Amino acid sequence: MRAGPAFDIASLHAAYQNGLTAADMIGTVFARIAEVNDPGIFIHLVDIGDLLVEAEALGAFDPATKPLWGIPFAVKDNIDVAGMPTTAACPDYAYMPDTDATVVRLLKEAGALVIGKTNLDQFATGLVGVRTPYPVPRNAMDADLVPGGSSSGSAVATAQGIVSFALGTDTAGSGRIPAGLNNIVGMKPSLGALSTSGVIPACRTLDCVSIFALTVDDAWRVFEVAGCPDAKDAYSKTIPANGFRQAPPVLTIGVPAKADRLFFGDAVMEAAYDDALRMLTKLGHRLVEVPFGDFYKVANLLYEGAWVAERYAAVKDFFDATEASFHPVTRGIYGGARQLSAADAFKGLYALQALKQKVAQLIASVDLFCVPTAPTHYTRADLEAEPIRENSRLGTYTNFVNLLDMCGIAVPTGTRSDGRPASVTLLTSSGRDGLAASLARDIHASSSLTLGATGWLQPKPKDAISVDEAGLIDIAVVGAHLSGMPLNAQLLALDSRFLRKARTSDCYRLYVLPGQKPAKPGLIRVPQATGGQIDVEIWQMTPAAFGQFVAAIPPPLSIGTLFLSDGTSTKGFLVEATAITDATDITHHGGWRTYIAATV
Amino acid sequence: MRAGPAFDIASLHAAYQNGLTAADMIGTVFARIAEVNDPGIFIHLVDIGDLLVEAEALGAFDPATKPLWGIPFAVKDNIDVAGMPTTAACPDYAYMPDTDATVVRLLKEAGALVIGKTNLDQFATGLVGVRTPYPVPRNAMDADLVPGGSSSGSAVATAQGIVSFALGTDTAGSGRIPAGLNNIVGMKPSLGALSTSGVIPACRTLDCVSIFALTVDDAWRVFEVAGCPDAKDAYSKTIPANGFRQAPPVLTIGVPAKADRLFFGDAVMEAAYDDALRMLTKLGHRLVEVPFGDFYKVANLLYEGAWVAERYAAVKDFFDATEASFHPVTRGIYGGARQLSAADAFKGLYALQALKQKVAQLIASVDLFCVPTAPTHYTRADLEAEPIRENSRLGTYTNFVNLLDMCGIAVPTGTRSDGRPASVTLLTSSGRDGLAASLARDIHASSSLTLGATGWLQPKPKDAISVDEAGLIDIAVVGAHLSGMPLNAQLLALDSRFLRKARTSDCYRLYVLPGQKPAKPGLIRVPQATGGQIDVEIWQMTPAAFGQFVAAIPPPLSIGTLFLSDGTSTKGFLVEATAITDATDITHHGGWRTYIAATV
Repeated sequence: MRAGPAFDIASLHAAYQNGLTAADMIGTVFARIAEVNDPGIFIHLVDIGDLLVEAEALGAFDPATKPLWGIPFAVKDNIDVAGMPTTAACPDYAYMPDTDATVVRLLKEAGALVIGKTNLDQFATGLVGVRTPYPVPRNAMDADLVPGGSSSGSAVATAQGIVSFALGTDTAGSGRIPAGLNNIVGMKPSLGALSTSGVIPACRTLDCVSIFALTVDDAWRVFEVAGCPDAKDAYSKTIPANGFRQAPPVLTIGVPAKADRLFFGDAVMEAAYDDALRMLTKLGHRLVEVPFGDFYKVANLLYEGAWVAERYAAVKDFFDATEASFHPVTRGIYGGARQLSAADAFKGLYALQALKQKVAQLIASVDLFCVPTAPTHYTRADLEAEPIRENSRLGTYTNFVNLLDMCGIAVPTGTRSDGRPASVTLLTSSGRDGLAASLARDIHASSSLTLGATGWLQPKPKDAISVDEAGLIDIAVVGAHLSGMPLNAQLLALDSRFLRKARTSDCYRLYVLPGQKPAKPGLIRVPQATGGQIDVEIWQMTPAAFGQFVAAIPPPLSIGTLFLSDGTSTKGFLVEATAITDATDITHHGGWRTYIAATV
Repeated sequence: MRAGPAFDIASLHAAYQNGLTAADMIGTVFARIAEVNDPGIFIHLVDIGDLLVEAEALGAFDPATKPLWGIPFAVKDNIDVAGMPTTAACPDYAYMPDTDATVVRLLKEAGALVIGKTNLDQFATGLVGVRTPYPVPRNAMDADLVPGGSSSGSAVATAQGIVSFALGTDTAGSGRIPAGLNNIVGMKPSLGALSTSGVIPACRTLDCVSIFALTVDDAWRVFEVAGCPDAKDAYSKTIPANGFRQAPPVLTIGVPAKADRLFFGDAVMEAAYDDALRMLTKLGHRLVEVPFGDFYKVANLLYEGAWVAERYAAVKDFFDATEASFHPVTRGIYGGARQLSAADAFKGLYALQALKQKVAQLIASVDLFCVPTAPTHYTRADLEAEPIRENSRLGTYTNFVNLLDMCGIAVPTGTRSDGRPASVTLLTSSGRDGLAASLARDIHASSSLTLGATGWLQPKPKDAISVDEAGLIDIAVVGAHLSGMPLNAQLLALDSRFLRKARTSDCYRLYVLPGQKPAKPGLIRVPQATGGQIDVEIWQMTPAAFGQFVAAIPPPLSIGTLFLSDGTSTKGFLVEATAITDATDITHHGGWRTYIAATV
């Protein structure tokens, strides 16, 4: 186990609370760099003297105003940090930025400290981590394996416990694959959530900044701090950092149909994925097999189609002038884009649009998808033999994601029978980062894995998740809207979030309403102690979603105030008295779910 | 004045109601074609015998099931009609489709009858209407002027009263310019609202089918019928055809800042535009000057940037093989796209995205924009002298619209001092077609213009507009929220709008709730005819406002469904039965306001 304070944010902040100083932390960071002794991780390291001055300037430990006070992080070397060279792993391309990328600035303002710039597949082109003129970072779990890329150094620095978190970028999977190969969390936010201002583009229309962390809580914390609309990034969007909380009890999770699963002969990975799916079922979720052929077709567009031209366009002048400065594999890819015409580019866009339309219904039919992060592991020797094919295969479950404007999070699920790490990635529509993170946290907790390669235990989950979602409205659902019931999809379609189970106070009676399809109960208030406690679920939604939801509720149901057994009250379903004249009283069942179970 | 029945839908349907037959109508169509005697309008005319058979098959006049029963229309010749050649005004390109374009099929199914295929600027490239190997259609208002394009024949056929409406397409303004130049309505729907399946692409990412009509009501009727999500068009979207109603009394309307207005020396057009703006002010609306420089920058992208490559891509094989088949001006434009690289295409997309981000706030700051449809008129002689420059200038206020995914409608505003037609175009965000059409109808009515070149009067507006404003929610208030009552301010604070007074059906009883401050009644449903009709007010608000409003309602009140005396229902206040045990029944007062007046 890595000695010294654990670097997940909760543990490190607890250590600060107990007297650790930022200078102590910095000493630990450099001791670990020496201990790990991997010259491939960092392309540039911060000057320790400068770092001590920066830490001193943070003042006293103050996580309330600086939520990332004293948290060390690393930055992929295609993202600008003022005063450190940006190389994109192409030394001839290097320049010295005098401004932080927007995300770096926001993290620094929150108290986080940059340790250095990390190695990558040159210009973020690759999923392997070996396409670099610098030493290749060692996979933190198994030095024979490739570290994964393109954000190789960021993932390894995090997995080794050198930093608490690291920034990567993700166009085709660069924020997910290295997380999956190094037993850490890799969050790939919705496109536009994190500004790409100050980031060297790969595919400008698909790029995003990603987050490597030891825990899902930490990734989310960084996401909250780093996400912000930015006028300097034309593709920036307002993506609210909300929805991270206890996951709904029954989610509908899409998984590739068995016949469409690709592991390229790696039966051990296939077994690990099956284990992960069993874990989801055990958590109470419902798995749905989904045909995956069209997702693979989207994935193929990324390197066969017009998008390579975006990579070329991003560095055209430099490439045309100094092609020899490029890594040979990267050079081959970029050079191939030169022949593509504008008509080819638009044909690529049309092909994508046609596939988008085809998969839209599949995406809408589930709450999220769970796919293997990578289909298999490759050794460095494998990559030397097949530098293009194996790289391409690694992207099986990642390449289509940004093209479809989905968000995702890679999370460790366990250790394969051969000791290598196993990971799944949860994927869902743009803006639902919170839902994916909520489920990822449950998965990580269920795995009971230690963090990265550090041996540190997962920190105890906080009792209450810090939720500050001003203006959200709670609603108690009683019948057909309960999780797994026929109308629950209405709540999910409105991006509602499950909060908790509850019971009403004993001033309600529950009836089966006659003639309703789907079957529905009606809850009606009666004098105290003349009714029973009835099971409800509390869900939460925005005012607009709540307004639409209420507007769509048919008579004889209405939305009023429900009193709960814990003394609180909430908005919830009621029924008009006139509707229960001929209705069956099922109060003694204590809830609709119990009644349904008893009558099937 | 054009003799025979007026062909706006209301007048023609009234004529059918009074005994006109479809065969009479068809006779009139062909008589008018002969009378107008413009060989430039139609590239292909329907066979009159076939048309009579088709009309016969409609059966008896039945506008309820066939809302366009017996309505003659024309189709731009880049849109497929089964059994008629599609030429795109390029004879060598002609083919014979055996399937209708989706929009044509929907219109036929609603009872409309295709009269023929109309002339256009070849491949819909141009705004002038003269870039065709066929005779140039004559401007219906002034034969010296260009007819406008690219949908020249469709606009002229409509303006001459040969058809009730016509389909065009609109990528850069082809559905608006010819409407503006021929004194008719040109509706350019939100992208994706009308399927482009069966339409020859110009710029696939920007194309839409447009509607020429004599009145806004007619354009809207066609839009309702023709709009439908279509799996055959990858860019198809669900755009609800709603929101067409009495325009809100005070709209904030953006107009180009004075310094940014471009009329290319046409002071008469400038004066006509000023008149139109005065008309808007007189209608009660608020004008806001908006800087227009960035909109012009977007417009310039369309022909200077990568999008020309879409036009080339659409007919690449044909163009590469038989370049000589093209109109010389068109050939020059298409040929210029050959050199563009995929990197150029993406650079164009990036430039657009940057401008989109800049103008987003301007667009959000107003309800809609009002711009001149065209900045000036050109004669055919002008175009012969300057075929490219004058075409480009015509697009000043149209070229940017589809690139920004806005919808628009061109509407006549008056007659210029020199007798030429004046027109403005209303523009707003995607999905707000109804809002633009609502205001356009007011403008057209205020203009008191006759229709197109027919001399027909505008039909009397219908008494009640079919109302279904996008997403707004009606709520019936019963007590303290009534106008002038203590809690009415809550509604006003949420920007709610008073819609109307109403009464409930006689299945409610009204009670004074004990112990409430301010005093409040409770409305409860009872079996039909055992209650009384109760006065309510219907207010309307957005889903978000409604959600906040409902969330703040204390027990024992709830929001359910109220049945009204006119047979409709609406969301409204109800009270829980348990709260009226000791309450005074005031049903006989017929309403809270009456009760209050009686007890003071």
